[in-house]
Amino acid sequence: MGTLRNDDAPIGVFDSGVGGLTVFREIARALPHQSLIYLGDSARVPYGTKSPQTVTRYTLEAANHLMQRGIKMLVVACNTATAAALPTLEERLPIPVIGVVEPGARAAVSKTRGRIGVIATEGTVKSRAYTNAIRRIDANVEVIESAAPLFVPLAEEGWANTHVAREVAEIYLSPLMDAGIDTLVLGCTHYPILRGTIERVVGEKVAIVDSAETTAAAVKSEIGASHNGSGQHHFLVTDAEERFRRIAGEFLAQEIENLELVTI
Amino acid sequence: MGTLRNDDAPIGVFDSGVGGLTVFREIARALPHQSLIYLGDSARVPYGTKSPQTVTRYTLEAANHLMQRGIKMLVVACNTATAAALPTLEERLPIPVIGVVEPGARAAVSKTRGRIGVIATEGTVKSRAYTNAIRRIDANVEVIESAAPLFVPLAEEGWANTHVAREVAEIYLSPLMDAGIDTLVLGCTHYPILRGTIERVVGEKVAIVDSAETTAAAVKSEIGASHNGSGQHHFLVTDAEERFRRIAGEFLAQEIENLELVTI
Repeated sequence: MGTLRNDDAPIGVFDSGVGGLTVFREIARALPHQSLIYLGDSARVPYGTKSPQTVTRYTLEAANHLMQRGIKMLVVACNTATAAALPTLEERLPIPVIGVVEPGARAAVSKTRGRIGVIATEGTVKSRAYTNAIRRIDANVEVIESAAPLFVPLAEEGWANTHVAREVAEIYLSPLMDAGIDTLVLGCTHYPILRGTIERVVGEKVAIVDSAETTAAAVKSEIGASHNGSGQHHFLVTDAEERFRRIAGEFLAQEIENLELVTI
Repeated sequence: MGTLRNDDAPIGVFDSGVGGLTVFREIARALPHQSLIYLGDSARVPYGTKSPQTVTRYTLEAANHLMQRGIKMLVVACNTATAAALPTLEERLPIPVIGVVEPGARAAVSKTRGRIGVIATEGTVKSRAYTNAIRRIDANVEVIESAAPLFVPLAEEGWANTHVAREVAEIYLSPLMDAGIDTLVLGCTHYPILRGTIERVVGEKVAIVDSAETTAAAVKSEIGASHNGSGQHHFLVTDAEERFRRIAGEFLAQEIENLELVTI
């Protein structure tokens, strides 16, 4: 990690689309005086089904664009991009870089009694990023990873709390429940949108780790408590800004202002 | 339209990902001796949520790549790309270009008693491509277009014949059924994968127009019956070839050979 730049500079939050807004929302809650700039690569979403090479290339392009905007820290608010590109970003950027996997893995280890389930995109599951991160912290913990790809379109279409979402959640989660997990990591930044539905399916005995919350806590601990920023929010997208405005408005439960279409 | 090149040259079939394979399958059935080359832009899928400008740019890049491979005809096996880019392609390419919208519109007009429903991606619905194409043929026909975005991931995840798909289909189709449609156009090349489920929901009184079938018929009528080709099939993708191999194998119900990763 590099050193922090000037205190007024914004924190950059990057995602392949809208999912990272759950991380953005938690950072904004935890650090209301920090200026934040969100970049959603909506022209090339989703990353979850793409190869690690392609995801790394896209992520570097996005990071370079945010560097030109003078960010002092980069939050990679996408599990797929974190799994594929975090070491490369840490090596190449002169500022601190925080991904979503490590904070989620730490929180899961601190909560579990021995058996952790992880739901994520196909790309994240294939990378085994969570299993590796969790095992580095505690080699005795058992980790079961499972892809839950339909959760992303369900969240984006505003179907998070429907009967269909409930049924899809039951299908995805029953193998993990049968395996006896005691902790469940929501390993895709879209999934907190379905948190209520997921909680109803797994019940109270399974602890939920929301990587949006844990990442925001990691950002706060790195930044420290600063009270002199202007707390401005900017949003950049690479395509389809009206769709972004609609979905982001629902995710953040607010009107989306300062939205800009960019080429990266 | 331009003129046909030599008879041995392949027909190019382009889609943003795997959906166009339903068109590919029907062309292969209708013209078993023609060589076909399929290009799926899996690095940038989906097109359905992208702006017309971006879709047109991507489609032109794909068409140029296929031209370098010596195709004699281009089939745009993607409703979103057809809706956004067909006039530009027809203007710029020296070979015949066939899209999926016009054949589907013709078939729908020939079947309807006056009220046509169209289900498609958000991009295709916004373009009103089907309404315009149908009205150009018969200005008295009523057209109701509706987006059914979850059908795409359901098809790709192999959930086409599940209870979840049935429930999603009921939610998407009930406004069209309530409006009294007598004909339903499957206006996205993914949707034929869910045809059985869709048919069970709409019942026998609604005629289904499968744009994969109608496009294959249009290609056959343009090409003529040729019996001297080698009938070879090639597949090109821009990313994640193993995912393509798996899903394409299911869509085509055959092993996928001659698969190549390309940059366009």
